Amino acid sequence: MQTDKRLVRKENYDKKELNLFETLFGNSNGYIGIRGTLEESVPEDFPTMRGQYLAGSYEIIPMKQAESLCNLVEKKQTMLNIGDTQTIKLTINGEEFAPAKGGASSGERVLDTSEGYTQRSVLWKSPSGRQIKVRIRRMAHFMIKELFTIEYEVEALDFSSEAVFDSWHVAETPNYSDPDDPRLADESPCYLSVTKQGFSGYTSYSEAQTLASKVRIAIATDHIVCAPSDYDTMVREEGGALITRIRVPIKQGEKITIIKYCAFSDSIREADPLKKAMQVLADAMKRPLTGLYDDQKNYLSEFAARSLMEIGGDDELEDAVRFNMYQLLCAAPHDAYSGIAAKGLSGEGYEGHFFWDTEMYVVPFFTLTDPHLARNILAFRYSTLDKARENAVLVGHKKGALYPWRTITGVECSGYFPSGTAAYHINGAISYAVIQYFFATGDEGFLKEMGLEILIETARLWLDVGVYDRQGRFCIQEVTGPDEYTCMVNNNYYTNASARYNLLYAAKLYEQMSADPKVAKLAKKLSLSDTEIEEMKRAAELMYLPYDEKTGINPQDDSFLDKPVWDLASTPKEDFPLLLHYHPLHLYRYQVCKQADTVLAHFLFPDLANKETMEKSFRYYEKITTHDSSLSTCVFSMTASMLGLHNEALSYFGDSAKLDLCNRHENTKDGVHTANMGGCYMAIVNGFAGVRITEEGLGIDPFLPEGITRYSFPFTYRGSDLKLSVDRDNVELELISGDEAEFMFRNNKECVGKEKKWTHRL
Amino acid sequence: MQTDKRLVRKENYDKKELNLFETLFGNSNGYIGIRGTLEESVPEDFPTMRGQYLAGSYEIIPMKQAESLCNLVEKKQTMLNIGDTQTIKLTINGEEFAPAKGGASSGERVLDTSEGYTQRSVLWKSPSGRQIKVRIRRMAHFMIKELFTIEYEVEALDFSSEAVFDSWHVAETPNYSDPDDPRLADESPCYLSVTKQGFSGYTSYSEAQTLASKVRIAIATDHIVCAPSDYDTMVREEGGALITRIRVPIKQGEKITIIKYCAFSDSIREADPLKKAMQVLADAMKRPLTGLYDDQKNYLSEFAARSLMEIGGDDELEDAVRFNMYQLLCAAPHDAYSGIAAKGLSGEGYEGHFFWDTEMYVVPFFTLTDPHLARNILAFRYSTLDKARENAVLVGHKKGALYPWRTITGVECSGYFPSGTAAYHINGAISYAVIQYFFATGDEGFLKEMGLEILIETARLWLDVGVYDRQGRFCIQEVTGPDEYTCMVNNNYYTNASARYNLLYAAKLYEQMSADPKVAKLAKKLSLSDTEIEEMKRAAELMYLPYDEKTGINPQDDSFLDKPVWDLASTPKEDFPLLLHYHPLHLYRYQVCKQADTVLAHFLFPDLANKETMEKSFRYYEKITTHDSSLSTCVFSMTASMLGLHNEALSYFGDSAKLDLCNRHENTKDGVHTANMGGCYMAIVNGFAGVRITEEGLGIDPFLPEGITRYSFPFTYRGSDLKLSVDRDNVELELISGDEAEFMFRNNKECVGKEKKWTHRL
Repeated sequence: MQTDKRLVRKENYDKKELNLFETLFGNSNGYIGIRGTLEESVPEDFPTMRGQYLAGSYEIIPMKQAESLCNLVEKKQTMLNIGDTQTIKLTINGEEFAPAKGGASSGERVLDTSEGYTQRSVLWKSPSGRQIKVRIRRMAHFMIKELFTIEYEVEALDFSSEAVFDSWHVAETPNYSDPDDPRLADESPCYLSVTKQGFSGYTSYSEAQTLASKVRIAIATDHIVCAPSDYDTMVREEGGALITRIRVPIKQGEKITIIKYCAFSDSIREADPLKKAMQVLADAMKRPLTGLYDDQKNYLSEFAARSLMEIGGDDELEDAVRFNMYQLLCAAPHDAYSGIAAKGLSGEGYEGHFFWDTEMYVVPFFTLTDPHLARNILAFRYSTLDKARENAVLVGHKKGALYPWRTITGVECSGYFPSGTAAYHINGAISYAVIQYFFATGDEGFLKEMGLEILIETARLWLDVGVYDRQGRFCIQEVTGPDEYTCMVNNNYYTNASARYNLLYAAKLYEQMSADPKVAKLAKKLSLSDTEIEEMKRAAELMYLPYDEKTGINPQDDSFLDKPVWDLASTPKEDFPLLLHYHPLHLYRYQVCKQADTVLAHFLFPDLANKETMEKSFRYYEKITTHDSSLSTCVFSMTASMLGLHNEALSYFGDSAKLDLCNRHENTKDGVHTANMGGCYMAIVNGFAGVRITEEGLGIDPFLPEGITRYSFPFTYRGSDLKLSVDRDNVELELISGDEAEFMFRNNKECVGKEKKWTHRL
Repeated sequence: MQTDKRLVRKENYDKKELNLFETLFGNSNGYIGIRGTLEESVPEDFPTMRGQYLAGSYEIIPMKQAESLCNLVEKKQTMLNIGDTQTIKLTINGEEFAPAKGGASSGERVLDTSEGYTQRSVLWKSPSGRQIKVRIRRMAHFMIKELFTIEYEVEALDFSSEAVFDSWHVAETPNYSDPDDPRLADESPCYLSVTKQGFSGYTSYSEAQTLASKVRIAIATDHIVCAPSDYDTMVREEGGALITRIRVPIKQGEKITIIKYCAFSDSIREADPLKKAMQVLADAMKRPLTGLYDDQKNYLSEFAARSLMEIGGDDELEDAVRFNMYQLLCAAPHDAYSGIAAKGLSGEGYEGHFFWDTEMYVVPFFTLTDPHLARNILAFRYSTLDKARENAVLVGHKKGALYPWRTITGVECSGYFPSGTAAYHINGAISYAVIQYFFATGDEGFLKEMGLEILIETARLWLDVGVYDRQGRFCIQEVTGPDEYTCMVNNNYYTNASARYNLLYAAKLYEQMSADPKVAKLAKKLSLSDTEIEEMKRAAELMYLPYDEKTGINPQDDSFLDKPVWDLASTPKEDFPLLLHYHPLHLYRYQVCKQADTVLAHFLFPDLANKETMEKSFRYYEKITTHDSSLSTCVFSMTASMLGLHNEALSYFGDSAKLDLCNRHENTKDGVHTANMGGCYMAIVNGFAGVRITEEGLGIDPFLPEGITRYSFPFTYRGSDLKLSVDRDNVELELISGDEAEFMFRNNKECVGKEKKWTHRL
């Protein structure tokens, strides 16, 4: 049943496609991210985003407010383009191999998600008529996170001459800019300044530092040449670049291969990043490239064992889902020094900032497939808890922590607070992920060391911001829910529901563990009183969740239904996404949603409304949602699954699964939509398969949508490795390893043991 | 009864006071505004705002948004500092007369509001021990608007020597900046570049132009020397400055006087501004200074005849009120090329922008004392109607005009739209002023030519933004009322009430005049249909005005009462104004008001609520209003008067009257609070005296507050010049000139004829 795990695209050196391919055929491993740029030079008007990134690296730059108001954010962090080591210019007989600039070419790009590399193959006829074949394979190594390699093979088809490779190492490179798109930075300075660089033998090295954040980035590169003839290597510095020139005679029919090893390090993780980069480089070069490729393959084979999704009857869909899951892996930090950016490490969209996306859309994937990675992400949030406390103070709170809406270091970077800092549901997302992680793993150590403190501090914030109204209901005012087409509202259903969950389990889990010395110590540190715990329980219990009798739905907020409904049918197609074509004040006045909001709340917290209300709400919001956000269709799919709306579930899922592969939002060039990729996973696992993890345990309630013949996926639950398979006839749960697992199947308690599969005939 | 019309202050050259005196002792005439800076040089750390301004002159500068959203304002206009012609450095024996830098001095500053000049008198002992007496009188001429004069007299008390005057003319001067205060610009570039300058004989001249707006400013200066001995004049250019050096022998006991004439013009008003400035200068210099002073005196004597306020029993209060009224005159444009800035022409606070303040607080003064000036201001708004239409389109409206919240040219300059562009009540203020002007003057010509078009286009905007809710009420959502501590709310009582007035009279006045050919032409031009007029009437009739049964008040907006009340009693004094100490999101969550909002609505539209509701509301809002805005206490005073709360009326009035004289908000240094000055006038005329102008005519309903023995003031109503006097025993209305006037006294129709005063015994 295994389909080809390769994404293959013909390469036309088309301007529009180039940038898209840079994203789709990039190499990331959770630490380094290298855009799939061409090695050679491109015409000047090619809109290339020539970037290399390290997770969590940043500069702090001014972000002047047009009108200063008290405590508004006036500085932001921005992800660094840490250098350029992907440039290799091949010249033969004075002609640079540059198919985008001239000559005739045919070729393709490949991303192999089971071997973990990208590859470019080109057959090129130079302007003077010489033909060469070029094959370039690039890899960001999953096990040696600091390592990136380029294997550059060239074959002379109809001539003999000399090949000259100029391999570049540039430590000062500007970030990408596009002043016309609000989702990208519009400044383009070079944030890094070289503090030292040069060659040690043939090894190029550099260390560069930012002005404000003082982050240092170290890079080292070196080359191995495989050629039948003798070759000649010369190094030079030119205009700030470190250039290694390799001259090799090339004969007709012969192949020459240059292997470029690049190692990266940073001062966030290492005291002496240059030393680290040099060490990694030296160690890697001791090993044959084939061995490094084998590592990669083995790593991905383990990844597949933990997560491989099989979808029968729709190979394209299966490919899309696997591509997405691979991208999630590429985005996942391997330590607690960074979160997951909106675009992972695949591009500069949203400036490398981490949003609620991470916890709400991406963490669930890791919680079920690689809990250790999920823990890293949550540990990063824990490491920034003090900054979240400071953020709460800035906004005027007397207690608690308010996580920043967008950040790299944990300090708020929102320039427009009404749809930034006001999105308090970031606290809900982080606490939800903590609680879910705990329910799924039973990792009490994490809870005692980090999780509970997050839960208590976020819950405290809800207590501080909320008020009891005149009917005694706990209300949360002037916040912005997930749907940013309505801002600063009162009693956003989603926010209130997620605050309720936060408050409830902060109190409950604390009470369950309060006897533990670590927890007692924490309570003392936080001056946490029983009264406060009671207040949390009371606020959760009395949380106001708006319901409208007339329509029978949960309104998105107190005044949502008083607004006129946006006439989507008459809105010209070119006016989408609306946010790029309408003033926010105008958007705020209508019933129109950028993305799922109440519909997401219903999926996450189904106990808070009855099925009829949820279905009516689904139908209501469906009509007024533009899905201008990439976080939307996956949620509609999940909720449709939950409500038994199987056709809708599959249809929304399809939209979600191929968003980047088909460039549906026309902005994949700026990076992949990481959250949507997580949401796509959830749409299958939590949607189709109905996997739910609650305080009570694991539940499954699967269905098989029309159009596919089966699906199956492994997952881990409280140490048991399981595999769920669903086809037309059967649901099967297999215990792969670990202890026997109890679970609920619909309303029945079931168990899968070591010796047998559990099967249910549909 | 006439008290001294001079403001006199001892001058200590104290750093804090210097800037305040620059405002209080500035010279403006509605066209030019010259800060009361010292002529000589000051220590470098003196925070001087050394400015000269011309009404309506501006540069367009970038205003980058921290986060770009669709159609947000990214450019703003900013008032120019048009040059420096007030600098005159006097050197005697190598010692510069500079009391702020050294030596011993005593002296005073004077503003004479009946003669229209400011004067500095200093007795100075130089560091080397020489004593001189200096008297400097400055005037911005009310009749020759382009003319500013400095009469500089010096007397040697105990020595004989030579006096050297260096009189400067600098055409490129930077604007003031203070990066710590959000109410001021934080950039300090020089917006003007000299295109030509030099001397023509002894006349210095310059023309300078801005980069973006292309506004050209022309200046010409020259001098007359009155000295017993021969003197010597030399001119030179030095570092861009045009310097006229006058050397005069000075003998003990002798006085020397230099008269500096400065003339200004601009390309907004004149095709050849330099020619104009030169002409004005030449004409002015033909006249003796005494004659120019007489002009000024005569002008102010006429101003007094139209407006002089007498308050018995409290000279200080009377002085304060007269000071305020004088400042209003100084701010009033004499043509339709500019509005009235928040600080008039007295300083750079709010960057010279015009707000709703003009129409709501300042126009009423002119409507009753000099309707022609009121007409100018409204004509300026008419001239920018097309820009208001464009503004409406930017925010997403399909029809109508939305006036900008802050502007110089008519183009929106709000950097933060939630408390900028969202303050749609600017439309309400402008339409209210138009309607009131018409009711007070009967100026049908204005209505047909300009007023009706304003009314119809603003009314159309309300139709476009408003919606009927499920109960059939006309609702206006996502707008910000006058109180900026709550933003983007639904059904702000004030906004809805003023929209109702706008809609009602747009329809009514149109219908009354629709037979007129001009009006018919207008209707055609605007494609105005009877249906639309019916829609306006319907929206006015069904306008939703929130009322809360439980408290018996009109809530400020739909959700205002659901919020917790800010604990003002426990708020530290240094936390005021709150806007400088709390994040807006925090402020928005509380019942706390920066200024009158519903309380203003009750004053303007008393028919919309009964007295009990208004009194309860007054008491309610009084407790939660900080008066952080200078527009607040005057309104509380007026409304208190209306409600018969006489003690409160006087107390709030006192706060308002002396706001600038006593520097109550500690920011008078940035300019006077023009709107509050207008509000202070209204607090007496519309408050104490109960003057009301409605469709039905003039009404008066006066009372005499405790603490004052009488008050009287002249005013004009539909061409009749009247004078109202109120003392303990009588109310008296006198017809000074014009036709007999009918009016309502409380509930009775009365009339004052040509031959007699109307008197009512209290």
